Amino acid sequence: MNTTDQFQKQIDEGLEKICRELNKQPAELYRPLMYVLEQGGKRIRPLLTLLACNLFDGDVRLALNPSLGIELFHNFSLIHDDIMDNATVRRNKPSVHEKWSKNIAILSGDAMLVKAYELISSAEITPALLQQVLKIFNQTALLVCEGQQLDMNFEKQSVVSIAQYVKMIELKTASLLAGALKIGAVIGGARGEDAERIYSFGKNIGIAFQLQDDILDVYADQEKFGKQKGGDIIANKKTFLLLKSFELAKLNPYKKEELEQWVHAPQFNAKHKVEAVTAIYDFLNVRKIAQEEMMRYYTNGINYLNEIPATENKKKELRMLVEALIRREA
Amino acid sequence: MNTTDQFQKQIDEGLEKICRELNKQPAELYRPLMYVLEQGGKRIRPLLTLLACNLFDGDVRLALNPSLGIELFHNFSLIHDDIMDNATVRRNKPSVHEKWSKNIAILSGDAMLVKAYELISSAEITPALLQQVLKIFNQTALLVCEGQQLDMNFEKQSVVSIAQYVKMIELKTASLLAGALKIGAVIGGARGEDAERIYSFGKNIGIAFQLQDDILDVYADQEKFGKQKGGDIIANKKTFLLLKSFELAKLNPYKKEELEQWVHAPQFNAKHKVEAVTAIYDFLNVRKIAQEEMMRYYTNGINYLNEIPATENKKKELRMLVEALIRREA
Repeated sequence: MNTTDQFQKQIDEGLEKICRELNKQPAELYRPLMYVLEQGGKRIRPLLTLLACNLFDGDVRLALNPSLGIELFHNFSLIHDDIMDNATVRRNKPSVHEKWSKNIAILSGDAMLVKAYELISSAEITPALLQQVLKIFNQTALLVCEGQQLDMNFEKQSVVSIAQYVKMIELKTASLLAGALKIGAVIGGARGEDAERIYSFGKNIGIAFQLQDDILDVYADQEKFGKQKGGDIIANKKTFLLLKSFELAKLNPYKKEELEQWVHAPQFNAKHKVEAVTAIYDFLNVRKIAQEEMMRYYTNGINYLNEIPATENKKKELRMLVEALIRREA
Repeated sequence: MNTTDQFQKQIDEGLEKICRELNKQPAELYRPLMYVLEQGGKRIRPLLTLLACNLFDGDVRLALNPSLGIELFHNFSLIHDDIMDNATVRRNKPSVHEKWSKNIAILSGDAMLVKAYELISSAEITPALLQQVLKIFNQTALLVCEGQQLDMNFEKQSVVSIAQYVKMIELKTASLLAGALKIGAVIGGARGEDAERIYSFGKNIGIAFQLQDDILDVYADQEKFGKQKGGDIIANKKTFLLLKSFELAKLNPYKKEELEQWVHAPQFNAKHKVEAVTAIYDFLNVRKIAQEEMMRYYTNGINYLNEIPATENKKKELRMLVEALIRREA
């Protein structure tokens, strides 16, 4: 078993243990936490924490509880985001507010956040290190909230620039990956400048992931893609592809009008809309532009990783993980 | 200026500073936090933390940030509870979800909880002490969530026993007062058994406060009472008075039916309902029973305080504060 697989196993076992401990009263509060944690998910974030700790030859056991805390934080944010976004499905199952109620989702999300802090606080690291870890975690948590707020703001804004969009995904998605890595690095004993490098690695990779998500929503192989293709188009989600199209269509009033008609259509056939908007994307070549932009962030990220003075073998584990993620088709 | 007034001033100044720092972007996220903190409130919880620290001759400056964190936690719980309870007014102003939206209230509540942890984590205490404080805080936060869950469960339950009700208010209200005191005591250097005593003091006093709230809602002097009298009766809130009345009315089928008719009335004149239910309370003598029960918890609490080996002067500050609260008329 390679290092990554070993770490994954430790994370899975740790989360199973947490689930067992959550089997308590009041069940209305704790059962949704078990429900969400039992669904799995890729559990990338805790893996990044452990790999980052390992990168600096740290004792990975010390990073396990904080890594699980980060996974719980991620799940807390999904529970609350799903309420705010009216998302009824998560990981092919009803979201918490759909299965139970909004109130249950608010409160069990709150409890999940507290449990996240509990796990982080329970790390058997020197208390001075704990203070450092908590500081990173608190900052990260606020950035994620800021990102979600910007995402909600964008829904009501008619004009969103690419720069604003990238800032939003940096806050909402990339900062947690970056924070997860930095926490692992700090527990692993990384020097300050290397902790910053791994943070920048995570930030850039995180932006690349989200851009890849935007692309996959439209261009994934439906066979391999887990969800409805074109969901972002149907929902008029302001993705990189849509924003870039509006930017480019300024020079082409005909395409601009066509795109606006689809975006503002009060009624439409979903399949036709997805096909038509995809055709506009193709015409404007935004897939390629998005891929180039994605690769730019990806390469930036990898460069930060390369700069870190660690063994090639250990860097390779991280590189392979992010490569698999960026090459994923779902 | 006496000690309590001095501490109150430090708390007010600390919260003002936090408000100034929250004046940042995205405003949609942070402005609700400022809004809530600027409204004031009695700020009892941070005061309890500082008085408890002082009781054990601790350096109160070290307890200030954690005490402010506890106040932020309290405000976070109010923001989220108000969504869950559909409460449109808080401290005579629109609640956050009413003034902005439910989504804003969910997310800014989350940010408030993170800020609470940030304040607690920033205490300039030994890291070992910080771990202890975080442990108390995490446990307290979960108990508060459990209490809110039970409170929501009770709304749907037809039968709630007095014991269940007291357990709920212990979790929802009293555990935060107890936690605030214990955190102050621990920072102040209290021995383990004295930290437990102050916790028990807070728990009992907290239950007494809530029982007093239940009584005041019906029997307060309207002139001095800040809100609509009888609000609990109108909303069929399962308070001590109502639950005790149902218990006693078992022996009196006529009164039981009368009470049930008012509770289940689909339409009613609010003034008439308040008068009629109050008359049933009077007939069953539940005000006196509630007052005796309240005084029992109050006295229990004070006894725990008395057992603590601290100077009489410092105990007196705590005793005067809780006495003023229990004798309040609004």
